Formats: sequence, C-alpha cells, structure tokens
Amino acid sequence: MCDRGAELVSSAELADGSGTTAAQVRKDLSNFGSFGKRGQGYAVEELRARLESILGLVRPRRVAVVGAGKIGSALLGYRDLTSRGFEIIVAFDIDPDKVGRTVFGVPVLPMNELEHRLAADGIEIVILATPPAVAQEVANRVTSAGVAGILSFAASKLETDGSLAVRWMDVALELEGLSFLISAATNGVEEP
Amino acid sequence: MCDRGAELVSSAELADGSGTTAAQVRKDLSNFGSFGKRGQGYAVEELRARLESILGLVRPRRVAVVGAGKIGSALLGYRDLTSRGFEIIVAFDIDPDKVGRTVFGVPVLPMNELEHRLAADGIEIVILATPPAVAQEVANRVTSAGVAGILSFAASKLETDGSLAVRWMDVALELEGLSFLISAATNGVEEP
Repeated sequence: MCDRGAELVSSAELADGSGTTAAQVRKDLSNFGSFGKRGQGYAVEELRARLESILGLVRPRRVAVVGAGKIGSALLGYRDLTSRGFEIIVAFDIDPDKVGRTVFGVPVLPMNELEHRLAADGIEIVILATPPAVAQEVANRVTSAGVAGILSFAASKLETDGSLAVRWMDVALELEGLSFLISAATNGVEEP
Repeated sequence: MCDRGAELVSSAELADGSGTTAAQVRKDLSNFGSFGKRGQGYAVEELRARLESILGLVRPRRVAVVGAGKIGSALLGYRDLTSRGFEIIVAFDIDPDKVGRTVFGVPVLPMNELEHRLAADGIEIVILATPPAVAQEVANRVTSAGVAGILSFAASKLETDGSLAVRWMDVALELEGLSFLISAATNGVEEP
C-alpha cells in the first residue's frame, strides 16, 4: 500500500488482505494502543511504522542458520526473508564438504566457531535446521552465545531457560492438521 | 511409547512430551469422546489407534509437491514425512531442466500433466512450493483435480471454494513472531 501511494486504509481492507475480519483487525491493533481515526481508517505510512516498531523490525534482524542440509540450504536462498526484514548473515554445519563454501552468498562455517561467530556477528535469531538428535545441544550453545530467539525445523521439544523465544516449523504437523480437516469434512466429524 | 512397549500413559506424561499441560491434554482428547480410565491413564496402543483415526492417518496420505525449487526439492527428501504417515508420490515443475528427473526418488513431471496425474495417482494433499504469483492458478487447477487439501509455502492468500482445506507455512511470518517476542521481552511490552 505504501508502494502504491495509498494514504488511508480501512480495517475492512486490512482484513481482506490478511484473511480475517475487520472487527478482529481493530481488536488486535487496539491491544497496542490507539490507531486510526473513527470513520477515516488508518494512515498507511504511520501504521507501517507502528507495526514495524511493534514487531521489532525497525532495523533488519540478524539471523544465522545452523544446519546447511536440504532445508537449511534452501532457506539461505529465500529472498522473501530479506524483504520482510531478516538478514541471513552466516550458516554453520559439521559436514567438511559444506564448511568453507558459500551458499546463495552466505558463508558456511564449522560448528567449533559457533559461539564466537554468533556473538561477533551480533546474531539475534537462529534458524535450527539440524537433525532432531542434536537440536537440544545446539539450542544450549546458541543460548549461551546470547541469541534471543530460535526458529526450529527440528520437531523435538527443547528445554530452554525462559529467556529464549522459540517457535517451531513442523511440516508433518501441518500435514496432520490438513489430514484431520479432510477426514472431518469427509466423515462429518466436527472440528472442536 | 508403543515402540518401547509402554502399556499405559498418563495425561501428565503426554503433556510433558508435547509441551502442554495435563489438563489441556484431557480437555483436548475429551472433544473426541471418552478416552482413558480415571486414575489409570490411557492405554497406549488404543490411544495411538484412536489418534490415527481422528487424524485420518490409518493409511498413508498421498501427497504431491508442486514446484521443485529450493524448498520443494528439500521436502522431497524429508524422510520425517514418511514416518508421520505422508507419502510423497510425485512432483511437478515448469523448468525443463528439472522435468524428467528424479529427486530423492520422486519423479518430477511437467505442469501440463498436473490434473491428469493428480487424479490418476489419487493425490489427496498438494504441497504448494511455487512462486506466490502462480499460487492461485495452481490452487485452482489442483482443486479441479479433486485434491482435498493444500499446504502452501507461498505466503499469498488463496481464494478457494470452501471444499478445500488450506494451511500455510510462512518462515517470514514465524520470524516476525519471534522478533515480536524478543522486542516485547526487551522493552517490557506485554504480549496481548
């Protein structure tokens, strides 16, 4: 909307673009204070700036990927992340065939440089794309290096000290959710 | 638990293994009828069978991947999906360099065979790993071929006819969620 020069946007337009309702948009935004003017909508540039501030994306977040396997490597080339405010600075792997290479412009470093480089590069978020068996150990190491958040592609549970924010991306879990919806639609089971 | 021969499991153990509370486990399961015996817990084999039935995973779900780029190709080699009950049968791409190849044992077919092969192979779920610009067109085509669910890695909204179940996996959205949590922890903003 900023790019095409729109000045005002209504909660209905925001809802339509994001798959929710106008009432939900107004309710969600009201959690963060006063936005918009009754009957006029939201000022687009101001709303963007406030949302960036709320999301902590006034400046790009510095991200590292641990595990340069299939999923990890794919993420290194994911341009959408840059445009959404995330800069992938560095990757780590244990495989000697991968270490020292540059994948989609991102250097792959050995695991023994992990803590040092995370701190030196000011990494705030780590994307964990390791086998589940080592996810906990890596989580411990990145926490000790001062990283504030982990996005884990390893489905295993992580014990963390509470200072660390963690989210999971689990393709199998999402497919299970779809499978449930399909079964419910077929068998007439109601979604609870 | 089945693999190690456990016969009974408590809601507390289930909660511990899945990052929730015992009360929530009991509440969630109660949505689907009567499970377990008060004070004894749940019979492990029976619980697994009931959960598989609820999730529609008594037999493996047949899955196709549309878009054999970085993310799509990575998913073709994702062994975790098989063990969780999803069988990737076939992939599709427009790139002549990819079509005709086999990636991690999965054949990559041209897009002009899409509807025919989805129907012939009895595909129930499509993983959409195309650029966002063509996601809607592909969604229309797979719906017309009788596919029941889409897991989309393209962040764009999809207009569907309501018979189709859709879920999204959006790495940037999850990173935005992490960034918000980190900012809130730093600035003392409360999560609403």
